[in-house]
Amino acid sequence: MASMFDQASRFFSHLQDQICDALARLDGTAFREDAWTHADSGGGRTRILSEGKVFEKAGVNFSSIRSQFKPEFAHQIPGEGLDFAATGVSLVLHPWNPHQPTVHANFRYLTRGESKSWFGGGADLTPYYLYPEDAVHFHQTWKKACDRHPAVADYPRFKKWCDEYFYLPHRRETRGVGGIFFDYLESSAEETFAFVRDAGESFLPAYLPIAERRQDASFSPAQRDFQLYRRGRYVEFNLIYDRGTVFGLKTGGRIESILMSLPLTAKWLYDWKPTEGSEEAKLYEVITQPRDWV
Amino acid sequence: MASMFDQASRFFSHLQDQICDALARLDGTAFREDAWTHADSGGGRTRILSEGKVFEKAGVNFSSIRSQFKPEFAHQIPGEGLDFAATGVSLVLHPWNPHQPTVHANFRYLTRGESKSWFGGGADLTPYYLYPEDAVHFHQTWKKACDRHPAVADYPRFKKWCDEYFYLPHRRETRGVGGIFFDYLESSAEETFAFVRDAGESFLPAYLPIAERRQDASFSPAQRDFQLYRRGRYVEFNLIYDRGTVFGLKTGGRIESILMSLPLTAKWLYDWKPTEGSEEAKLYEVITQPRDWV
Repeated sequence: MASMFDQASRFFSHLQDQICDALARLDGTAFREDAWTHADSGGGRTRILSEGKVFEKAGVNFSSIRSQFKPEFAHQIPGEGLDFAATGVSLVLHPWNPHQPTVHANFRYLTRGESKSWFGGGADLTPYYLYPEDAVHFHQTWKKACDRHPAVADYPRFKKWCDEYFYLPHRRETRGVGGIFFDYLESSAEETFAFVRDAGESFLPAYLPIAERRQDASFSPAQRDFQLYRRGRYVEFNLIYDRGTVFGLKTGGRIESILMSLPLTAKWLYDWKPTEGSEEAKLYEVITQPRDWV
Repeated sequence: MASMFDQASRFFSHLQDQICDALARLDGTAFREDAWTHADSGGGRTRILSEGKVFEKAGVNFSSIRSQFKPEFAHQIPGEGLDFAATGVSLVLHPWNPHQPTVHANFRYLTRGESKSWFGGGADLTPYYLYPEDAVHFHQTWKKACDRHPAVADYPRFKKWCDEYFYLPHRRETRGVGGIFFDYLESSAEETFAFVRDAGESFLPAYLPIAERRQDASFSPAQRDFQLYRRGRYVEFNLIYDRGTVFGLKTGGRIESILMSLPLTAKWLYDWKPTEGSEEAKLYEVITQPRDWV
């Protein structure tokens, strides 16, 4: 029988195909694919859709590598020894239309040394203009996936973990309306893998309906500008706090694949503040005070 | 007699006035000023010129604060105890025209506890299109300032320090063509202060002639796009590596003042590479292999 690592790797690779097929259909544009190999062993496939009809920039990465931690980084990761293996799928979609939210998802499996291994992952939604029903739908989809695996998944805990993880302390803002986040799930590997498969397959039902129903919403140049301003926060989070980005930069990952999560365009306006009562202010209400959506 | 801290603070405050006056004249636009106070003691004046005629975004900060290091951060700074005082001027100028380089300069004085104090600072130039004579002029100006203070300043050492400091390991690129960088200059406070005054007053002669002679150069949309792409690197450096940014974020500085260094607009194109023999490729030659300019 294949090892858990090989099974997980095969699933993530297949999930990348499934998700890219659906996104390419929605956009009417094919992904560009770059296969790459890691300096040590393994590699990945990066798929990017740039300046499509729906997506300004969409990246879906698959990777499966075996390597060694640098000693100065190893203490940040559970387990013993420097040998590790990591496989996962990671995606960030930035649509053109500010009424369509940016979304991120990642599902991964890691092993360290002889005996330590765990699953991690999650998904979070970053709207520019708030449609509460979209946030509700997104969270409901993840809650249902968690509820189908009560032995290993816990929606309230994963939801809270997500709010805490996707947080910018220097801005006192969350990255968006959250979703779920989980890491170091190491007991009951079979059951956890079943949950991760279910969660992975929940990504399209969680996001596609939202992207589709906001796709034809008209928007003003000022709304586009606000979107680009908020994308600056996405850049700040990913470069300052994101563990996946740091992990990739510190373990010799392929830079262009790691940083594909950055938006095509971002703006930094000095000391910008939303006008009271505006649509922009409504977004700030939920990113400064996380809300329960289900 | 005023303490060295008060003398330095007064000089930096005056230097901010001098530099802003000259830049506002060049641009034909006044700076907006925001005075702010630190949670503990002191504060600063942030001056921003946004979407002017010459500058897309220009920020010149002055600050003078007394506060306490957080224990988990204190070990990164020389000296003992948690009390510190810091004063300095810091600026980043992003012109619209891609033939005009972005420039950064910072001059500062810090004291920690009862007995430790030092000067630091520097300036570095980030061109989008390379004019070797501009890099030569910039470096020559700093070399002359150093050479006037041989007891405390050392151009070859400060030039190398600059190349090493303004370096993006994940890109294997320097931020630009460098300049000078120095820190922890603690002996001969009077002589060091004389050098720092001279360096501070060298900023306008180092940069203004370059900005002026490139101001009317025409540029294509593709050149503007390349500039925005390279500004992504500026964002990467400042958010991932810049000690001043980290220092500010960790010591309760004013976020909008700290992040005023970020450009108005930046782009991340996936896996972009310069065409061989192009003007863009000429820039890459000097940022992947630092050059001696004087």
